[in-house]
Amino acid sequence: MTDTAPGTGGRRRGRPPRTESAGTRERILDAAREEFAERGYEKTSVRGIAKAAGVDSALVHHYFGTKEQVFEAAVEVALVPALKVRDAVLEAPLDDVGERMTRFLFGLWENPATRKPLLAIVRSAVTNEAAATVFRRLVASQLLRRIAGEIDAPDAELRAELAAAQLVGIAMMRYVIKIEPIASADIERIVERVAPVVQGHLTGP
Amino acid sequence: MTDTAPGTGGRRRGRPPRTESAGTRERILDAAREEFAERGYEKTSVRGIAKAAGVDSALVHHYFGTKEQVFEAAVEVALVPALKVRDAVLEAPLDDVGERMTRFLFGLWENPATRKPLLAIVRSAVTNEAAATVFRRLVASQLLRRIAGEIDAPDAELRAELAAAQLVGIAMMRYVIKIEPIASADIERIVERVAPVVQGHLTGP
Repeated sequence: MTDTAPGTGGRRRGRPPRTESAGTRERILDAAREEFAERGYEKTSVRGIAKAAGVDSALVHHYFGTKEQVFEAAVEVALVPALKVRDAVLEAPLDDVGERMTRFLFGLWENPATRKPLLAIVRSAVTNEAAATVFRRLVASQLLRRIAGEIDAPDAELRAELAAAQLVGIAMMRYVIKIEPIASADIERIVERVAPVVQGHLTGP
Repeated sequence: MTDTAPGTGGRRRGRPPRTESAGTRERILDAAREEFAERGYEKTSVRGIAKAAGVDSALVHHYFGTKEQVFEAAVEVALVPALKVRDAVLEAPLDDVGERMTRFLFGLWENPATRKPLLAIVRSAVTNEAAATVFRRLVASQLLRRIAGEIDAPDAELRAELAAAQLVGIAMMRYVIKIEPIASADIERIVERVAPVVQGHLTGP
């Protein structure tokens, strides 16, 4: 509330106070992640995000634009580490890519900082086309197509998607719908069983 | 189902005209499936369902009760064949249970009559607790626990869930989020690759 809202008039020539606006942006994005993760895309409103962040709706629009743009900015925090790890996954030799890909995905889900945006993406992508597009870009274009590029097989893309499907299905049952015993199982036991399956999809016969 | 066997005759006294009410019920359930599949649980209203079915909201409440009860009745159409096929899957020998389970699930998804309620369940279960409960009952209690009961391994339930996760993930990517190439791939190619994986989860080392 004590924020100097840029755009409310006397915007000082030059840039807005840097640390303060960075703090406000972050607070809005935190609130957005919380709302999208909790309610999904459809039921989340810019007004609700603004309220949760303790700012005016106009400020949210000022920083990010439309609801779709707020969504993209909010889930990007999951995209950035995903791209970094993707590169690490791809730079290592292919013969344990299954385990690396599995650990990478569960690493994101088990980390509270990235679990929220992932929940936001999943809860939103199943009911909203804009969010589904973000999911497709995040998972398909940025991650799977690159992994497929490393695989020497005519059906490389389908293989990469079947591998991803195994991981997506576990994430759905463990983190979203929470079916037991998979929701509470030790993550190492799951990795142990699943990494060879992912590897088999990618490089098996 | 303890429904009246058609043609038994003697139950007319005081009941609404049978064909008419059956037609209305079916029309309401069709509309409900359409709405829940399209919008998910949260955004669907009894009023919207009534409107789509061309009846008064009061009639929907009269036949089914609350929105949650309409939801359960609407998705039950997927549950009934699921239970029948589950029994068929379980009566056959275990050494091709992977392929039977895979064909069974894709059979439901590829059939337009059961795809709608499945979409309704998935779209609703990720954002709504009541729908998640239906999903857990449908998938976990009715299907997976029974399959696990046939497997002679200490981690039988986790195995059954990892097998289901492979199929759930493909369903998400193929039918819900529609990522290519898995969305348009020939279903036989997918079965061919996936059935051994499901079998491996269930009965592998």
